[in-house]
Amino acid sequence: MLSEFDLIYQYFASHRTSQTGIALGVGDDCALIQPTAGQQLAVSSDMLVEGRHFFAGEDPQRLGHKCLAVNLSDLAAMGANPLGFTLAFSLPDASPEWLSAFSCGLLQLADRYQCQLIGGDTTKGPLNICITVFGEVPPGQALRRDGAQAGDDLWVSGTLGDARLALAAYLGELSLPADQHEQAASRMHLPEPRVALGMALRGIATAALDISDGLCGDLGHILKRSRLGARINCDALPAGPVLSRQSRALQHQFCLSGGDDYELCFTAPADRRAEVLQAAQLSQTPVTRIGSLTSDPGLVLTDAADNILELALTSFDHFRSP
Amino acid sequence: MLSEFDLIYQYFASHRTSQTGIALGVGDDCALIQPTAGQQLAVSSDMLVEGRHFFAGEDPQRLGHKCLAVNLSDLAAMGANPLGFTLAFSLPDASPEWLSAFSCGLLQLADRYQCQLIGGDTTKGPLNICITVFGEVPPGQALRRDGAQAGDDLWVSGTLGDARLALAAYLGELSLPADQHEQAASRMHLPEPRVALGMALRGIATAALDISDGLCGDLGHILKRSRLGARINCDALPAGPVLSRQSRALQHQFCLSGGDDYELCFTAPADRRAEVLQAAQLSQTPVTRIGSLTSDPGLVLTDAADNILELALTSFDHFRSP
Repeated sequence: MLSEFDLIYQYFASHRTSQTGIALGVGDDCALIQPTAGQQLAVSSDMLVEGRHFFAGEDPQRLGHKCLAVNLSDLAAMGANPLGFTLAFSLPDASPEWLSAFSCGLLQLADRYQCQLIGGDTTKGPLNICITVFGEVPPGQALRRDGAQAGDDLWVSGTLGDARLALAAYLGELSLPADQHEQAASRMHLPEPRVALGMALRGIATAALDISDGLCGDLGHILKRSRLGARINCDALPAGPVLSRQSRALQHQFCLSGGDDYELCFTAPADRRAEVLQAAQLSQTPVTRIGSLTSDPGLVLTDAADNILELALTSFDHFRSP
Repeated sequence: MLSEFDLIYQYFASHRTSQTGIALGVGDDCALIQPTAGQQLAVSSDMLVEGRHFFAGEDPQRLGHKCLAVNLSDLAAMGANPLGFTLAFSLPDASPEWLSAFSCGLLQLADRYQCQLIGGDTTKGPLNICITVFGEVPPGQALRRDGAQAGDDLWVSGTLGDARLALAAYLGELSLPADQHEQAASRMHLPEPRVALGMALRGIATAALDISDGLCGDLGHILKRSRLGARINCDALPAGPVLSRQSRALQHQFCLSGGDDYELCFTAPADRRAEVLQAAQLSQTPVTRIGSLTSDPGLVLTDAADNILELALTSFDHFRSP
């Protein structure tokens, strides 16, 4: 059996990308970050628990990817440039196969975003993975939740709902042909953080967040913090390629309330549409305008003809869910 | 049942100390830290798991204290000044009583060290608490593990072994009178991070770490990284007031290999003893010189008459332990 310290060093400390800004990495009581002069440091922590955020027995390489991806997605939603992360996890046993695959999925993504593993903690226990990620953003340019204005356009990146569709298939709520299932499942297991888009939207977007618990529920945070309402054209929602083959009702439902999308939802002034589209092009990330912000509170859902739709939606909640 | 978001806001977001250096706290995708110009940021993550780091049913107020204390202890070991922390935790149910007591223990300690809660994550699952803590330290002044020199004095702060003695009593390995049990147990449950001493030792200590897994095991990290050995006078070890009533053999054993002490172990040049003692006085933290660093590798244990002692010691390891 490997010891705790062997574990850390063998699988993770080999990741020495000597990222600018990291003065001391894994192996001491603390890591040391040397922030770029004048920049702010964006920080976010996410904890993923077996049986809640992922199925028991989940493929460890995919899991490694997803754990870091959801954290990078928080940096993206802030417009921050990734710098480094700490990894703390408990696992039932120190299987070399599991650790090798998990670290591979995690560190490949870390390398792609030049985000250095700078420290962590391992312990025995039920599988639980907690990552804290750090990025830099110029003061005043972070994409917060409280800056939206009435009249702003409402946008989302990429497509929505395919991750929720995959979950429905896993749960037996519906069945999909094998190729469609695989395509949808990759959205659920291998989310791609929208880091480049978030950075390109600095100074353009008035508010932003990433969609992890479903568009409506997450948008609610922007509305609450900005003290506004919104009107969404449900027929404009960019359903994922697999979900697009399902009924219009299911498309609406999964686009509006499906979790695990990890797309950005953001607002921007209507007179800056060209700049939003340019940011999307620069970052090679599709964006779709889906509605607008209103001074009246609450969320109004319409179809393309502006008829109001009555939909019963629930956002994912870790304590309300069974 | 409370929702996830209510949970965070109700118990933790009330903690608005508006610490200098925190530009944006709880409630967005990321928190924003504005580092002091020129300072380095020290970062550490620790994960505490029920049944491994603390007993099932542990008093939540004590637990809240301990979770943050062990992280602040990592900052202390680096000589860093606490700034803020993120808190991610999973718990089986959202009991208001538990959350109220836990947050109380946590935030009281946070307030004492002016360390602001800046973000986090809550989810349902087996009890697991992960804190990532941030502090500042001037470049080049962090107390690392790799700076010890042959001939340096070896020091520890406070006293050792009472936490291990309390564990022995809980496990039925021995019995203690009620008052002694209580005194020893408070060392186990309510460790006090040595933040002031760590900061006072900047520029004086050549290496430092905090003792969480036992003096010998933890000292091993300094020896390995500094490529040195050490000689410890076991009769000089500062046994805790309760442990001091036990046999000399048990005092040696628990001082050398007991976990949960959260004292600092550090090295400093022999010609700077007066400065070490002044730092101790300034920080109102007792320190004891227990040995010295040697160019020969390995750890030699002696008594006060310099006779070599043969002791079988094991350091705590989360994966090797049952």
